[in-house]
Amino acid sequence: MHEATYDVKEIEKRLAQYIAGLKAPSVLKEAMDYSIQAGGKRIRPLFLLSTVSALGERVEKGMQTACAVEMIHTYSLIHDDLPAMDDDDLRRGKPTNHKVFGEAVAILAGDGLLTHSFQLIAEDPYLDDALKVKLIALLAESAGPEGMVAGQVADMEGENKKLTLDELEYIHAHKTGKLLTFSVLAGAMIGGVTDMQLEQFRQFAEHLGIAFQIRDDILDIEGDQKKIGKRVGSDESRHKSTYPALLTLEGAKAELKKHIRLAKERLKETGADTGTLLELVRMVETRDH
Amino acid sequence: MHEATYDVKEIEKRLAQYIAGLKAPSVLKEAMDYSIQAGGKRIRPLFLLSTVSALGERVEKGMQTACAVEMIHTYSLIHDDLPAMDDDDLRRGKPTNHKVFGEAVAILAGDGLLTHSFQLIAEDPYLDDALKVKLIALLAESAGPEGMVAGQVADMEGENKKLTLDELEYIHAHKTGKLLTFSVLAGAMIGGVTDMQLEQFRQFAEHLGIAFQIRDDILDIEGDQKKIGKRVGSDESRHKSTYPALLTLEGAKAELKKHIRLAKERLKETGADTGTLLELVRMVETRDH
Repeated sequence: MHEATYDVKEIEKRLAQYIAGLKAPSVLKEAMDYSIQAGGKRIRPLFLLSTVSALGERVEKGMQTACAVEMIHTYSLIHDDLPAMDDDDLRRGKPTNHKVFGEAVAILAGDGLLTHSFQLIAEDPYLDDALKVKLIALLAESAGPEGMVAGQVADMEGENKKLTLDELEYIHAHKTGKLLTFSVLAGAMIGGVTDMQLEQFRQFAEHLGIAFQIRDDILDIEGDQKKIGKRVGSDESRHKSTYPALLTLEGAKAELKKHIRLAKERLKETGADTGTLLELVRMVETRDH
Repeated sequence: MHEATYDVKEIEKRLAQYIAGLKAPSVLKEAMDYSIQAGGKRIRPLFLLSTVSALGERVEKGMQTACAVEMIHTYSLIHDDLPAMDDDDLRRGKPTNHKVFGEAVAILAGDGLLTHSFQLIAEDPYLDDALKVKLIALLAESAGPEGMVAGQVADMEGENKKLTLDELEYIHAHKTGKLLTFSVLAGAMIGGVTDMQLEQFRQFAEHLGIAFQIRDDILDIEGDQKKIGKRVGSDESRHKSTYPALLTLEGAKAELKKHIRLAKERLKETGADTGTLLELVRMVETRDH
């Protein structure tokens, strides 16, 4: 079976190499590297690589795209933490990028990671041009003004407002769902799937994305501050709409269970070798940080 | 002969259409559109399209890439104007993006334009996949941490310091030169050039980029505030290193002339039909805003 733990180290090694290899001012490289190395679960690259592997393709074929998606995720955290946005001082228990490098460099480090992610896919030595173009189009759609950026704007607009469940789902489907779905779809495309399998993987990823977000909201209430690396209860103190606030804590837990079940059903339908993917699903369901 | 004036209107129409067509929160689309419609000379798309045309290829083939490069240029202005960066209230005589939409939306509008630019090239209906991949790789390199973003970081680090001519040239070659060079090279690649012609176009673009920046510095001293849309003398009051400060005003003018001459020589060597490109060179040399 495919080893997800091995992949995390390899992903982190590659990310560090790509940044170290850049011909750029050292403070920019340091700032990019700081947030890339700040840890996190690497859940997007792991889903991407595990999907590649579940389809019997070599993990190496997905590595550069996996690093690209982690760079995009990291840029979004840097920009989200800025004083003009969420104004967070800590991220994963460490000072946020702008606290260390200043706001200007933090903005530019984010811009740099975002831009470079497309170069990584375009220069991938293992993928053919047709696939690269599809991956780039899908990544831009998933991360851009119709994807993650849309979710971020909707999230800000929804602050201090009581949202409906539909509005809350729009925010999460875009803010975190699109990039997670991209990761699974990119892995499926690199692994070489049929159109029907691609649709099954898409539905798998969408249920997974919702489950991921519900778990996040639950952790904000029940989690251990030391493990999460940020203050527990911060959603409530910011009057953010959450699944527990809309559905009660028990209702949110039932909803989490439902989406995990649906994700597993869709995954089974793909007929792929889903061992590692199921491990990752379990991690989404039970993670404590 | 190819009509550059026609292109400006067409470029602006296309840019507006691409943004109007996005499925995104309306405030995000308004913010993206605001800065896109704020005018400017559209010099990057014009150079791109005029190069395509100079090589006898249909302008339409370059239109989507031309819009992509203008989106990247616009994102860079939005982020540059932020309080944490240059802290500018006016751009082209109008309030800057964050003055109208707030900092958070301005940051996200910039992120959205940057991300969407890659989608525009990836989804171009006229270019083949091999060319799209080359254009995307070159655009990311030109705009990212080895290109424009590097120049922006170096520019900030150089503030309130007396720079050498080499340091000043590094800043400009990256901050404005790389994207201008991309525009010419992209046009040449879309127009279908030989390797030797591509190298001649590159040198043409590099001299042009330096000339563009020298003219910018001269305008900051001699320009008409109403035409430029920002305060004259702002470089000096910010203690920014400029060509006139390093070379004297007369020296800077001589240097401008030299690079314009070299640009024209390289352009002639390409053997392309350079009518419109020469018009644009004249515009770079003599522009008053």
